[in-house]
Amino acid sequence: MALIVHKYGGTSMGSTERIRNVAKRVAKWARAGHQMVVVPSAMSGETNRLLGLAKELSPDLTTPELQRELDMIASTGEQVSVGLLAIALQAEGMRSVSYTGWQVPIETDSSFTKARIQRIDDQRVRADLAEGKVVIITGFQGIDPDGHITTLGRGGSDTSAVAVAAAMKADECLIFTDVDGVYTTDPRIVAEARRLHTISFEEMLEMASLGSKVLQIRSVEFAGKYRVPMRVLSSFTPWDIAIDEEAKSGTLITYEEDEKMEQAVVSGIAFNRDEAKVSVLGVPDKPGIAYQILGPVAEANIDVDVIIQNVSHEGKTDFSFTVHRNDYARTMELLKSTVIPKTGAAALSGDTKICKVSIVGIGMRSHVGVASKMFAALSEEGINVIDEKYMELAVRALHKAFEMDLPPA
Amino acid sequence: MALIVHKYGGTSMGSTERIRNVAKRVAKWARAGHQMVVVPSAMSGETNRLLGLAKELSPDLTTPELQRELDMIASTGEQVSVGLLAIALQAEGMRSVSYTGWQVPIETDSSFTKARIQRIDDQRVRADLAEGKVVIITGFQGIDPDGHITTLGRGGSDTSAVAVAAAMKADECLIFTDVDGVYTTDPRIVAEARRLHTISFEEMLEMASLGSKVLQIRSVEFAGKYRVPMRVLSSFTPWDIAIDEEAKSGTLITYEEDEKMEQAVVSGIAFNRDEAKVSVLGVPDKPGIAYQILGPVAEANIDVDVIIQNVSHEGKTDFSFTVHRNDYARTMELLKSTVIPKTGAAALSGDTKICKVSIVGIGMRSHVGVASKMFAALSEEGINVIDEKYMELAVRALHKAFEMDLPPA
Repeated sequence: MALIVHKYGGTSMGSTERIRNVAKRVAKWARAGHQMVVVPSAMSGETNRLLGLAKELSPDLTTPELQRELDMIASTGEQVSVGLLAIALQAEGMRSVSYTGWQVPIETDSSFTKARIQRIDDQRVRADLAEGKVVIITGFQGIDPDGHITTLGRGGSDTSAVAVAAAMKADECLIFTDVDGVYTTDPRIVAEARRLHTISFEEMLEMASLGSKVLQIRSVEFAGKYRVPMRVLSSFTPWDIAIDEEAKSGTLITYEEDEKMEQAVVSGIAFNRDEAKVSVLGVPDKPGIAYQILGPVAEANIDVDVIIQNVSHEGKTDFSFTVHRNDYARTMELLKSTVIPKTGAAALSGDTKICKVSIVGIGMRSHVGVASKMFAALSEEGINVIDEKYMELAVRALHKAFEMDLPPA
Repeated sequence: MALIVHKYGGTSMGSTERIRNVAKRVAKWARAGHQMVVVPSAMSGETNRLLGLAKELSPDLTTPELQRELDMIASTGEQVSVGLLAIALQAEGMRSVSYTGWQVPIETDSSFTKARIQRIDDQRVRADLAEGKVVIITGFQGIDPDGHITTLGRGGSDTSAVAVAAAMKADECLIFTDVDGVYTTDPRIVAEARRLHTISFEEMLEMASLGSKVLQIRSVEFAGKYRVPMRVLSSFTPWDIAIDEEAKSGTLITYEEDEKMEQAVVSGIAFNRDEAKVSVLGVPDKPGIAYQILGPVAEANIDVDVIIQNVSHEGKTDFSFTVHRNDYARTMELLKSTVIPKTGAAALSGDTKICKVSIVGIGMRSHVGVASKMFAALSEEGINVIDEKYMELAVRALHKAFEMDLPPA
């Protein structure tokens, strides 16, 4: 008998028919003798519907007071899900009980719409498990020290599931999703993309931070911190698939580096179309210039990703960095009004049609020549800076160059 | 400066456009210097949508475990409403904060889907009011001693509003609804129905218990127990109607009987199409026979309304009573299988096409002849037992006979 956490995404919970299938799958695991905790997301489309209503009432939703109300509203999507799943499980003849974030409680800080989990009290859940109940806990949400409802931000249900698994010292946390595991890259772009049976925690973290949408990055960080055994697998297999087969499917995230992994130099290719590039041209190359440019950007709460400072020429340099596309207009405005006059830069340029392609693999540590092989592959295709329209071509070229379509030797 | 509670029904909260109007109306009252607490219902249709999802998953939802989950689900409708209204108020430039039942907290017993309020802690609300915030509280729900979410049953938001008003010792509780007050009878049936400017608490209680849908009966009981000044008025007047005019509109529920009220012998006519009649025929007329028939019915949790025992004839009598139509089939089954054999009754008959028409008025106490006038009016129209199809005719005939279309002298 093991203690198992299942997490189901919004697509898996998208209709009563699908919720019934989730219940049957969970019941199968419970009947096999496991103690089960389930963390479902809101029914697909529900969170957007709720936030859409809020936006109709106020175009600006940025103050803490407004964000508190957003969390009050958005958290109901998961509350409906857990209640429905508990009913579906009882209709299957199982005992079950659902809890919201505040009922467990899942304690967070007070950063509304992007709160961080600080502590999970597992007493109530353990008592129910001991009585033979399946316990269903809302993802995505918690309660702050003042008793306000908080949410963890988009994809937060992954984090909730892993955090619950860590708090309960679960034997495994299974993330059921609409893909059947972690791939070398997005199979919709590279037909030869291959599913990985295992991926190291560090590689998964890289993949997530570089734009892979399979797992939310904070859930991977959480899993790493507490070394939670975590598996990504499909919720679209028939619910009555043999449990032994299901338990070995998908992609397992591992914490020990074994020999096999050492052999794979590059495990995956991640990409990201959400960024925009900003360049400050002809800026005097003095110590502290990077801070003069990036300080005001950071103060405006704009996250900077890649930073490139060109070689200086006659005491002047070009300084480029990337930001999220949603922050592009605000960044350009900020640079124009404050940074340009203060630094004496010659000009400003920007590009929203860029993308970022990254290769991922812990094997790169001990292998030279990965970067040169990457640029060689791109130059063979005539790709220089990766304009958005060449992104898919670039990903396919790299996938082939690193022989990622072949299983590891 | 007064402390005022506003309650808005589901129709008033039915769209973001309407929520914006509610916010403007509340803001008008707050800007006039009042401390404002608002209790809104779920957006119209939302509670039915949520319960519909639950029913798709389980045809039977009667166990306490399932009803607990129903409350988990249904309570989200009001949670969304309070968050949206708080946002709308902030968009109007007001400070506001929303609370769920468990956050206030509104403490109830553990009767899921029909819980009763036991205690309301007003500390948190008072602190916010003192800071100049409009406080918005979910109707319909509370928290039980074990930290489970409970709901108060259909129309429970009226009860929540009155209970909050009682706990806060509010100066007035305004129930905004889709009718503009309490009428002598339903204006959709009698065109001459007249709005009452005041109605006594006892009459309102009668009207509610006899089928008038304007206010939920438990909210009226609560108002009476704590003598909460309560007014029913329209939410469909323009939001910017002068506050002095609005404050005097609708129908005020009063607790003192003044002379004017004494003059109105009959204040209203209530009716109800939800009942069915059951008759046990030719039952031996012995002491305890009523208990032998009604005991098993009560044990099966079936509410009995009107009871009629006919004059005994040769030691036998006919015993009739009414139950809710939803309980009709179950009642007939129960009588057939247990009561008939035990009492030796000759036969059983039933009628689901009946209705109940009642006349209401505290003035009846000191006036004789009301019942005879009622039956005279009905017999003039040739109405004997009120078959459902004659109900509207009966209500119109009584409304005219008691001159209820004329303002009180």
